[in-house]
Amino acid sequence: MYTPAQLQEIIENAIQNIQYPSHPDRLYQPISYIMSLGGKRIRPALVLMAADLFGADLEKAIPAALAIETFHNFTLIHDDIMDNAPLRRGKQSVHEKWGVNNAILSGDVMMVESNKHLSMLDTAVLKDALNTFNATAQGVCEGQQLDMEFEEREFVSIEEYINMIRLKTAVLLGGAMKLGAQVAGASPADAEQLYQFGENIGIAFQLQDDILDVYGDPEKFGKQVGGDIIANKKTLLLLKLKELAGDSDLVELEKQSLNQDFDDKISNTTLLYNKYNIRELASVEMKAYSEKAFNALSALAVPEERKKELILLSNQLMNREH
Amino acid sequence: MYTPAQLQEIIENAIQNIQYPSHPDRLYQPISYIMSLGGKRIRPALVLMAADLFGADLEKAIPAALAIETFHNFTLIHDDIMDNAPLRRGKQSVHEKWGVNNAILSGDVMMVESNKHLSMLDTAVLKDALNTFNATAQGVCEGQQLDMEFEEREFVSIEEYINMIRLKTAVLLGGAMKLGAQVAGASPADAEQLYQFGENIGIAFQLQDDILDVYGDPEKFGKQVGGDIIANKKTLLLLKLKELAGDSDLVELEKQSLNQDFDDKISNTTLLYNKYNIRELASVEMKAYSEKAFNALSALAVPEERKKELILLSNQLMNREH
Repeated sequence: MYTPAQLQEIIENAIQNIQYPSHPDRLYQPISYIMSLGGKRIRPALVLMAADLFGADLEKAIPAALAIETFHNFTLIHDDIMDNAPLRRGKQSVHEKWGVNNAILSGDVMMVESNKHLSMLDTAVLKDALNTFNATAQGVCEGQQLDMEFEEREFVSIEEYINMIRLKTAVLLGGAMKLGAQVAGASPADAEQLYQFGENIGIAFQLQDDILDVYGDPEKFGKQVGGDIIANKKTLLLLKLKELAGDSDLVELEKQSLNQDFDDKISNTTLLYNKYNIRELASVEMKAYSEKAFNALSALAVPEERKKELILLSNQLMNREH
Repeated sequence: MYTPAQLQEIIENAIQNIQYPSHPDRLYQPISYIMSLGGKRIRPALVLMAADLFGADLEKAIPAALAIETFHNFTLIHDDIMDNAPLRRGKQSVHEKWGVNNAILSGDVMMVESNKHLSMLDTAVLKDALNTFNATAQGVCEGQQLDMEFEEREFVSIEEYINMIRLKTAVLLGGAMKLGAQVAGASPADAEQLYQFGENIGIAFQLQDDILDVYGDPEKFGKQVGGDIIANKKTLLLLKLKELAGDSDLVELEKQSLNQDFDDKISNTTLLYNKYNIRELASVEMKAYSEKAFNALSALAVPEERKKELILLSNQLMNREH
């Protein structure tokens, strides 16, 4: 069994060994750039961990891991255009650095690069892997579309919100695990079990992120605490509050949404969350998904011993404050 | 053997039978929209014609034809954003109708749709088909990048220009033919021969288009005659003229590039082309590529009788004035 740290090293090496064409350089530079900005490489690590669960030769799973990581970074380039985001991992986003047209096109060719990685897989597993990868990619696009639409909409239900984060974030974790299992020759039932683990843990991660945005330790949380509040982002917490708050508190919430003094906005909105016990309610929801995830993992027909690293990694991620 | 008209009917039916998901509707509507704008369906027809050359069951080649046509239409959506084009086939372009963000994302999911079509191919031919498709898609992106860069550049050589149109346009015709051959189980040598045919005929088509922009019959040419001249587009004709023109004519050409009276600009620029015999020089170049294409087709180890429809279609396209 490999530890997450070992897997990450394997992934970093594999990424550094990718040879993109040198010409046209403005097309390929953004790809090397975004791939080298780092990140925790969770998704390719999940591909390899899933393959490792079944004792596969990890070399054979690397193309799938690279396909997933390349696809993920491609979505970051295009999402940053759509979200008008000037920064990515603290550096200039691709469209800021190379312009929007270049960022669209480099993203497009990056999608081709992911497909090229995938096509390196063994013929025996190729068709299943393609089906998983394509369904995953399609879900991620649907999630981004819903995310954009929800920004414009007045009312979004909690069910709709969870479906959106499922598509935008969780499907890719589920897809990564299923892909790893398929490459390792796991049975369809086991691959599906791992998909369920990944998808549900992904929803739990995102809900955890919603909670940490308000209640995270500013010293440890990677992003600005209160960032979602400032942006009036429709998170689980905001949607729950809107469901539960009385009329006068809804008026206060509406007032706060326009508050330009951001510190004041954060503290007043947090008071409302506290009044309605939103942190605990959100935690209950979050834990329901992480439990579903771990149940799927328990049901997996693999010796418990082999699940150790995956459980460790998931717990670390669930208990993170950053 | 199927005639081009029969193949086009097969393709139209297959396109109409594609079921895109209904939700989120704003993500999928642009796909149905652009796929229904029509066009000559040359690329998927070439896939099927190539397969038909080897007597394949065309049903088996349809996923490849749909992958190629879907990919082509995806590039139209993204190209129209980059080129700021308000119209496509006389109708609103996707980003005009749905906005840029939506057009980026619908394009992205359309690329996934092409990959889904491709993944329906028989396992026996899947890996080769993926390799051809991915190399083709990559080339098309490179061509679009070069096309954008050439607009900004002062000097572009004829060699660079032909490499750009090869990538942007011709590679997809070559890829379509190679894919059809591979799906039909043709030998690698035959598939490569057909690739050469498609790529070279594609370059010839584009050079023909450059010539028709200036010398086409306004009644028959689908686009505005002189459109390239108005846009100061670096076509084969303009690049040849720049190579050959004397200093005073270069000054005149520079003056015309700024001329806002477009009729005057077209007629004066055409006079310069006539003076240096550019039409004939461009035709020589164009014919060299179409000869290369037909030589590749002659070398193909398939009874001449079976090549008839492909030769007919190519000649029609080469002698078109629209």
